[in-house]
Amino acid sequence: MGLFTKDIKTMDDLFNHQLRDIYYAEKQLVKALPKMADKATDPQLKQGFLNHLDETNGHVKRLEQVFQMHGAEIKAVTCPAIDGIIEEADEVAGEVDDKSVLDAALINAAQAAEHYEIARYGSLIAWAKQLGRNDCSSVLQKTLDEEKAADRKLTELAESKVNLRAAS
Amino acid sequence: MGLFTKDIKTMDDLFNHQLRDIYYAEKQLVKALPKMADKATDPQLKQGFLNHLDETNGHVKRLEQVFQMHGAEIKAVTCPAIDGIIEEADEVAGEVDDKSVLDAALINAAQAAEHYEIARYGSLIAWAKQLGRNDCSSVLQKTLDEEKAADRKLTELAESKVNLRAAS
Repeated sequence: MGLFTKDIKTMDDLFNHQLRDIYYAEKQLVKALPKMADKATDPQLKQGFLNHLDETNGHVKRLEQVFQMHGAEIKAVTCPAIDGIIEEADEVAGEVDDKSVLDAALINAAQAAEHYEIARYGSLIAWAKQLGRNDCSSVLQKTLDEEKAADRKLTELAESKVNLRAAS
Repeated sequence: MGLFTKDIKTMDDLFNHQLRDIYYAEKQLVKALPKMADKATDPQLKQGFLNHLDETNGHVKRLEQVFQMHGAEIKAVTCPAIDGIIEEADEVAGEVDDKSVLDAALINAAQAAEHYEIARYGSLIAWAKQLGRNDCSSVLQKTLDEEKAADRKLTELAESKVNLRAAS
């Protein structure tokens, strides 16, 4: 992005910019998820992070597919939001001295990332439809459905087990 | 937080820590929302940001009430996630050269903040219930309901008007 020029002139430019933003975010999550799986104590949580890592690798591939469908260069732009979310997850996790409480904190951190992605994919899908790119919006919708399902699974795991143990 | 000690030992500590995190986030949003209202072109979006500023001031007060109910010191801890979300909003807004596209970008930025808060309040409410603090969870629930309503209103405004104009 130029320092003195305004590079986003159309809805199409905004779509491409945010595609690059979420592409960066997904790639950062590919690096963060194995570390989160490593820290998790509960075997179901650990496995959940690893399953979501597989899905996240798929999200990266789907974004590359959307870049190609839309004729845009496959490129990432730094996304300070996901960097902040991951930094905060590391900070909080580093402060926790109890395994069960750590699991609760990890779920909380993962849900912040999921919700960031839910917001971003929601806008990208709406913009793609507006731009007449229903082909791109259906690919992005598959990822959004997986992010929402991952968020629901984390809530279930927190409420059925992890929080009970952390508060005991 | 200490550099060499792990300060979060219990679920109660985690609850207090994340209360301080969202307290910081709400206070940053009190500063960011007037700037977003200023940049918005669509009068309904401008008014929406100002209405949400009023609500956000109320969220700050509710958090102070929860700190007091829970016997915890009213204190903010830096939340790199909201800082990243706001930094990104500023960056993207600065790059947009078209008023209608800027409105679409502002909605997108605001929804990232809303979703961050939805994730955080969701966990805080679950933790409060687990800690036997249904009094705190009901206060926090009021804010969560307002965040979700604000997010829905932004989606409606984007889909009914702002995106149509931005893509035209």
